[in-house]
Amino acid sequence: MLAAIVANARPRHSEGRVATYIPELGKARPDALGVASVTVEGEVYGAGDRDYPFSIQSISKLISLALALTELGEETVFSRVGVDPTPDPFNSIMRLEMDRVHRPYNPLVNAGAIAVISLLPYGRSEERTAAILDLARRLTGNDALSVNEEIYRSERTTSDRNRALAYFMRSTDVLSGDVEDVLDSYFRQCSIEANVGDLAVMGATLAAGGINPASGERVLTSRVCRVVRALMATCGMYDGSGEFAIRVGIPAKSGVGGGILAVVPRRMGIAVCGPALDGKGNSICGMQVLEELSRELRLRVL
Amino acid sequence: MLAAIVANARPRHSEGRVATYIPELGKARPDALGVASVTVEGEVYGAGDRDYPFSIQSISKLISLALALTELGEETVFSRVGVDPTPDPFNSIMRLEMDRVHRPYNPLVNAGAIAVISLLPYGRSEERTAAILDLARRLTGNDALSVNEEIYRSERTTSDRNRALAYFMRSTDVLSGDVEDVLDSYFRQCSIEANVGDLAVMGATLAAGGINPASGERVLTSRVCRVVRALMATCGMYDGSGEFAIRVGIPAKSGVGGGILAVVPRRMGIAVCGPALDGKGNSICGMQVLEELSRELRLRVL
Amino acid sequence: MLAAIVANARPRHSEGRVATYIPELGKARPDALGVASVTVEGEVYGAGDRDYPFSIQSISKLISLALALTELGEETVFSRVGVDPTPDPFNSIMRLEMDRVHRPYNPLVNAGAIAVISLLPYGRSEERTAAILDLARRLTGNDALSVNEEIYRSERTTSDRNRALAYFMRSTDVLSGDVEDVLDSYFRQCSIEANVGDLAVMGATLAAGGINPASGERVLTSRVCRVVRALMATCGMYDGSGEFAIRVGIPAKSGVGGGILAVVPRRMGIAVCGPALDGKGNSICGMQVLEELSRELRLRVL
Amino acid sequence: MLAAIVANARPRHSEGRVATYIPELGKARPDALGVASVTVEGEVYGAGDRDYPFSIQSISKLISLALALTELGEETVFSRVGVDPTPDPFNSIMRLEMDRVHRPYNPLVNAGAIAVISLLPYGRSEERTAAILDLARRLTGNDALSVNEEIYRSERTTSDRNRALAYFMRSTDVLSGDVEDVLDSYFRQCSIEANVGDLAVMGATLAAGGINPASGERVLTSRVCRVVRALMATCGMYDGSGEFAIRVGIPAKSGVGGGILAVVPRRMGIAVCGPALDGKGNSICGMQVLEELSRELRLRVL
Repeated sequence: MLAAIVANARPRHSEGRVATYIPELGKARPDALGVASVTVEGEVYGAGDRDYPFSIQSISKLISLALALTELGEETVFSRVGVDPTPDPFNSIMRLEMDRVHRPYNPLVNAGAIAVISLLPYGRSEERTAAILDLARRLTGNDALSVNEEIYRSERTTSDRNRALAYFMRSTDVLSGDVEDVLDSYFRQCSIEANVGDLAVMGATLAAGGINPASGERVLTSRVCRVVRALMATCGMYDGSGEFAIRVGIPAKSGVGGGILAVVPRRMGIAVCGPALDGKGNSICGMQVLEELSRELRLRVL
Repeated sequence: MLAAIVANARPRHSEGRVATYIPELGKARPDALGVASVTVEGEVYGAGDRDYPFSIQSISKLISLALALTELGEETVFSRVGVDPTPDPFNSIMRLEMDRVHRPYNPLVNAGAIAVISLLPYGRSEERTAAILDLARRLTGNDALSVNEEIYRSERTTSDRNRALAYFMRSTDVLSGDVEDVLDSYFRQCSIEANVGDLAVMGATLAAGGINPASGERVLTSRVCRVVRALMATCGMYDGSGEFAIRVGIPAKSGVGGGILAVVPRRMGIAVCGPALDGKGNSICGMQVLEELSRELRLRVL
Repeated sequence: MLAAIVANARPRHSEGRVATYIPELGKARPDALGVASVTVEGEVYGAGDRDYPFSIQSISKLISLALALTELGEETVFSRVGVDPTPDPFNSIMRLEMDRVHRPYNPLVNAGAIAVISLLPYGRSEERTAAILDLARRLTGNDALSVNEEIYRSERTTSDRNRALAYFMRSTDVLSGDVEDVLDSYFRQCSIEANVGDLAVMGATLAAGGINPASGERVLTSRVCRVVRALMATCGMYDGSGEFAIRVGIPAKSGVGGGILAVVPRRMGIAVCGPALDGKGNSICGMQVLEELSRELRLRVL
Repeated sequence: MLAAIVANARPRHSEGRVATYIPELGKARPDALGVASVTVEGEVYGAGDRDYPFSIQSISKLISLALALTELGEETVFSRVGVDPTPDPFNSIMRLEMDRVHRPYNPLVNAGAIAVISLLPYGRSEERTAAILDLARRLTGNDALSVNEEIYRSERTTSDRNRALAYFMRSTDVLSGDVEDVLDSYFRQCSIEANVGDLAVMGATLAAGGINPASGERVLTSRVCRVVRALMATCGMYDGSGEFAIRVGIPAKSGVGGGILAVVPRRMGIAVCGPALDGKGNSICGMQVLEELSRELRLRVL
């Protein structure tokens, strides 16, 4: 069934475009499409380009958020970053000024993710990145997970908007510390490279309340998983979150590398990757696959 | 267990305030608190002030939305109103001008609900209200459901902000027709009076994909129920939707009369009423009851 | 010289469009173009369609502002309305919500003018309009000045945006009283009909510090004239005020009827009328005439 | 008379505060107050702390704007930066995103000034700064004018908001080139140190249409002076421009170092310095001196 869904969705890649604002992302194969799912019992399914490697981009925001919640607690994290969905694009800055408390709306927009990273209790980018990468490896069960250096360098040199967000937040005391050092961790986490199998394990871990079904390790508390899943449901697909809730009805987080990580609480994690994006930065084929899968397997929770 | 949860939550009413911007609402009992749940199999539970009558206010937006989706289809409805969650307060106007297409963000903020009502294919307010009330009766299974005339008159005379929203939308061609006539239906639907038992049946109907478990009647299609539930999950608690998703994790819709209607898909509807509100317009005790109930009965879907 | 300037500017009417959002305004002659100037000593010059009658529209905002300043004083008026130029269009609403004090930016945008009218210390629209018309007659020296009833009725039936502004301001307590009654005065003052000769006398009165050079009557204090002229210089040409200051360099106020009233302090008033407007609502030929006249007669004060 | 006006205004310094967001500015003497005026014929007057040196801060925006207009012409400059007054604070960012063309509103807000500097046809900051300083010296007739290095270093290390503005503009292609290099010139021009006598000569040069009355050199064209004066009148005092136009009625530009440069076209330049600022960043005593002077000498042009 997965194979049929993939075959059915793949032609739609022509409706979208590979992200090009980071030059290295422009090298992705627009017609690549892979899907994998892992149940909380550890059963694995997949179809299409399962081994296609892609940078996880904004999906990494889940990892640093989970790390911050684990290390600092909800109260500290949400005193600096809100939990409100927003209809603004992911890289919007105006709300940071309009809002009277100058907080980023939520941890899954760029400003919020950068603010979360700046809170992490580690010395410099190297240590911060090591901690994020360590958690990413335990969530996916893949000890070889690493940063794609070409993409990282491409991100770092083409990220004026993120610099604007970070400097603005430092000017309003939302962010403290060395802006370039904080951004370095942000660019590195965005450049973590994975395949859909890796992310599906991570999704299963979030679905299972924090226990990685592949390794058996408790990676996160169930409370942290609940918070992460709730934010995925309301804010995970950028300004397409509302439409996704209607069409698919499962908590999910997308990245401009073409990946989408979906979590069916207590049942399974599903990851798709298709680099052709719609205007909101979400994978066109990926959403199509998730929609059909949700209908076929009656996965929707909303 | 319900009784214990109610007893535990009731004292928190002192942290909030009864809505007073509509004078008649100010007459509500701040310490009233009732809860009812109805499963998709039709089992009924309840505790506290189960017979306390209250105006359903914004919960009525679900009814006119379901009616519009049924009569006109998603494409027509969502060409005029978006499906995006928003961090703005429920009566905000600035986004109507800032947004380039001038659409209200979603059907559960005031502007969106007014726009939805204006689309309904009926002649005048009388017919429109009759159709809304008819659907409300079939959703709740209560044929005696009706508009509280005192509250309706109070709404009509104190609704400058809603008039501003409506006239603005007519100036941008989002709304057509007679503004006062459209608003009349809006004020009337807000003034529908019910108790938690009525709303719990409506919630069960939405949970069951459209079949009222009390009457056995198919009131809505399962597709319409899905759309309504998805919007409840992302936009139902105003600018408190994100926090509610974390704390409770169930699609819900609140009203400034103190009611909250929650829907656990495929399992049950739950309604609470406690007129003391927080700063975002949501019932303080009602949210507390839902949070505890969600934890005790493992109801969260996110 | 005036005749040559008019002849030179007239063909540019084809670059603009007569205002049509108020149907009656659409009946204006796009190629009409007249100019008149009156010095503070009472000398009168003119060329082109000097007798062409047009509704003064937003130029009337100067009259009700002068009346309010005279009757209530600066402190009262500017506690409700700001004095800040704004880059927003004249009928913008979003700032009313964004700004923390919810004041209209200045008395020369629609919201500000409506708020000023609501402050006037008269019972109902009839009396308010009578006072405004009386001041208009004394400023122009034309006792026959009156409201064009066709335009007034057309304004009243097509003014959704102004209704939105007024209801919004009442919802934030910027405006009190009967919205429709306040708007009635606003529509009537906009519909006052004059020719360029009338307005040039009014401009000369403002230039002379309040003494009408035709009648010799002191109509306003010099302090009120200063305030009015300063607001004309910074906010008088809507979001084209900055460009006008560069090109022409004289305090001025435009109306969508095609009129522009310019005031050279201590020297003269100049009025032009050319109904073809640019995208900001300012007369294209009128601005051209004023620019040439300013250069030829070295009128600029900036 | 000047001495009396200074003595009268000086005590008001206690109502304001010296700027401290740039630490070095915090060292200014809050009760310093000096005034100088230079007529277009070259007569010099002054009173108070005429030799008190201060950094000219935003007054320098006039210099780089005049340089850009001279080197590139109005069309090029105003294709990147608008000419619209704005009610937003000087360091506001949200308009850059809201406005559909993403242009800074005018060259006298921070974003606009940074954009203007980035347009200057010079290689690197050193050359750019040299050209700006050269023009500053010719405008003031003071060949010894130079950058205060302590203030420059203080600016450079505490300017997160300006970095945010610059990176944002580069992300929208309003600004090109090396952000830090462009900002370096901005910080250097802000740190140019002068006294009121220097600035009064510069004001007289602008008043005289570009001929420095002290040196007899034609420094700017009269057209460039007109543009600069018009922008001073509408945007020169930040979000206090409207109030200043009413109270004083003369084109002026303020800086957070406490200086204000006022220009009475065809008559004189006036400079004041008083480091205690109001909430909008304008010198309290300076505005008071200018208001009295304007009244006594009948200087207002509006």
